[in-house]
Amino acid sequence: MLSKQKEGRIVLAIDAMGGDHAPNAVIEAANLVLEDKSCKDVYFKIFGKKDKIIPLLKKFPKLINSSKLVHADQVVSNDEIPSSAIRNCKKSSMQMAINAVKSQDAHAVVSAGNTGALMAMSTITLRTLPQIHRPAIITFLPSEKGRVAVLDLGANVESDANNLYQFAIMGEVFVKILEKKEKPSIGLLNIGSEEIKGPDSVKLAYSLLKNSTVPINFVGYVEGNDVASGEIDVVVTDGFTGNILLKSISGYAKVYVHFMKKAFTSSLLSKLHYLFSKPSLNKLSKSLDSRMYNGAMLIGLNGVVVKSHGSMDSVGIANAIKTAYNLSKNNINEQICEEIIQSDHLE
Amino acid sequence: MLSKQKEGRIVLAIDAMGGDHAPNAVIEAANLVLEDKSCKDVYFKIFGKKDKIIPLLKKFPKLINSSKLVHADQVVSNDEIPSSAIRNCKKSSMQMAINAVKSQDAHAVVSAGNTGALMAMSTITLRTLPQIHRPAIITFLPSEKGRVAVLDLGANVESDANNLYQFAIMGEVFVKILEKKEKPSIGLLNIGSEEIKGPDSVKLAYSLLKNSTVPINFVGYVEGNDVASGEIDVVVTDGFTGNILLKSISGYAKVYVHFMKKAFTSSLLSKLHYLFSKPSLNKLSKSLDSRMYNGAMLIGLNGVVVKSHGSMDSVGIANAIKTAYNLSKNNINEQICEEIIQSDHLE
Repeated sequence: MLSKQKEGRIVLAIDAMGGDHAPNAVIEAANLVLEDKSCKDVYFKIFGKKDKIIPLLKKFPKLINSSKLVHADQVVSNDEIPSSAIRNCKKSSMQMAINAVKSQDAHAVVSAGNTGALMAMSTITLRTLPQIHRPAIITFLPSEKGRVAVLDLGANVESDANNLYQFAIMGEVFVKILEKKEKPSIGLLNIGSEEIKGPDSVKLAYSLLKNSTVPINFVGYVEGNDVASGEIDVVVTDGFTGNILLKSISGYAKVYVHFMKKAFTSSLLSKLHYLFSKPSLNKLSKSLDSRMYNGAMLIGLNGVVVKSHGSMDSVGIANAIKTAYNLSKNNINEQICEEIIQSDHLE
Repeated sequence: MLSKQKEGRIVLAIDAMGGDHAPNAVIEAANLVLEDKSCKDVYFKIFGKKDKIIPLLKKFPKLINSSKLVHADQVVSNDEIPSSAIRNCKKSSMQMAINAVKSQDAHAVVSAGNTGALMAMSTITLRTLPQIHRPAIITFLPSEKGRVAVLDLGANVESDANNLYQFAIMGEVFVKILEKKEKPSIGLLNIGSEEIKGPDSVKLAYSLLKNSTVPINFVGYVEGNDVASGEIDVVVTDGFTGNILLKSISGYAKVYVHFMKKAFTSSLLSKLHYLFSKPSLNKLSKSLDSRMYNGAMLIGLNGVVVKSHGSMDSVGIANAIKTAYNLSKNNINEQICEEIIQSDHLE
């Protein structure tokens, strides 16, 4: 695999035009990753509009030496419908970056652009891994004891038992690599912890996971509150539930900040308190800094596809790029294939 | 209806033995409601162990005059499985309180006991309202602009389009009464706002709601982040998603408190800030005080059934009792029946 580029390097295809602060934040992010000692062997293929990117690159001479800029005429806009993006954006930075993975000119693609388009283009271009029926979106969320990986966050509208089973295996490999954990614990999201409860698909997935011939650490059903508690490493659910879970949690994060500001600014005295508390509040927002959790993978495809949140600055995007780097470096897809092949229930 | 008790009074059947702080917190809560001027015509039927309740009642002479104590030998424990509770707890305070609604000796039942048992017993004893296929659990959650009602929070494992349609109508009446709003806005939870997205049941429910002959204010699909934003009055979803949403939000509420405490106690200086900030922090926790949102209704049954969270103190339970009072006083079930009968798609 990946014979076409310099040996030993991890090559990342970067969609420089995706995200609210593109291309500036994306180029700055690539440079941040390059300066990170743990990513010494990274090499970038940067896709986007040359006239916009060349002036930015000039600020980072080291990055010029560790990257190749490929001009892309088109940009996928945020309101482009996935089906139309596939048809009409063949010359876009996003599609061309994905193509680089397909042609084995890059290990992974990173984009902060239109999520639906990225999912659709990647799935059609790269196809799923052997044995894998559906890809899923996975990311880390903050938890009381560190972070918890949750999937599927919305790649699928409905999931059957075998999809859920495969999500569990893929999520386990994701956490193994990024958390350097040998036996991550896996929980299946349900509305109660008893075996008899839940929709049929979830009950059947439970039995597939419990009887799996893959040596996984399946702990059984978990409930909504277990996502935040941090007791579980991987939480598995269908894409509908996962998407609503993710968005409702981030919605409430905003409400907390709103209430907090209100509490600290409701009177002159409380404004004074606010001044005194600023260092503590800054520490608090650091604990919950969404940039630290940025970088969702579309897992299950022939190639590593990582999505940064569109609103991210360079620090956030750099974390997404590092995620792509670490997953590629540790051959996540080979590891997934090795595990999935041990499942004896697969046809 | 309800000919057997004093005319004009709202009679509430109280399960005095349910909840972590029963019966003390329950009796104190009843007294708090009695002292509330907006509930002047309330009358209680209190079900539970006489030897435990009589000494408590002695503290509240006014409550003695506005209540009747009915001895119940059994208590439904928290680990009782619903099916076994139905069979084996016929003489429990919970079942007897539900029976009082069935026999029209009370308008509503309130319990802080075992949720599964309360749902099962109520559903079997009271049955669903005419035309209503399934009951649902509804409660208010905090939002940026006040509060938002969400259903179903877990009465059902799966819901079809017609269930979702009926949940919307029932939720609308619930909010109409408790928020005194004439045309509450209704949103259907989905993973995107476009009409083409989502599971079939959700897409069909969308079309039922959009074309409903009941004059409701249906705003279309909403996403997870719209729950917290407070732009929508009623958020409709299936019981699986709703249950996970509810529990994950409350799980993260705990994580926020945890991070906040950590931020304020990590150094001597921050401990000092904590002292200065206490009034503001108290104001913050008041905004998010779960006691203010306590009182979930099992909506759609022949009778008003309200569940208090088991961990609640007397203030929280009093709010659940007031919810039952207001719903009964405003004839929620009659209003639901009047609206649902206007739906021309029903068989």
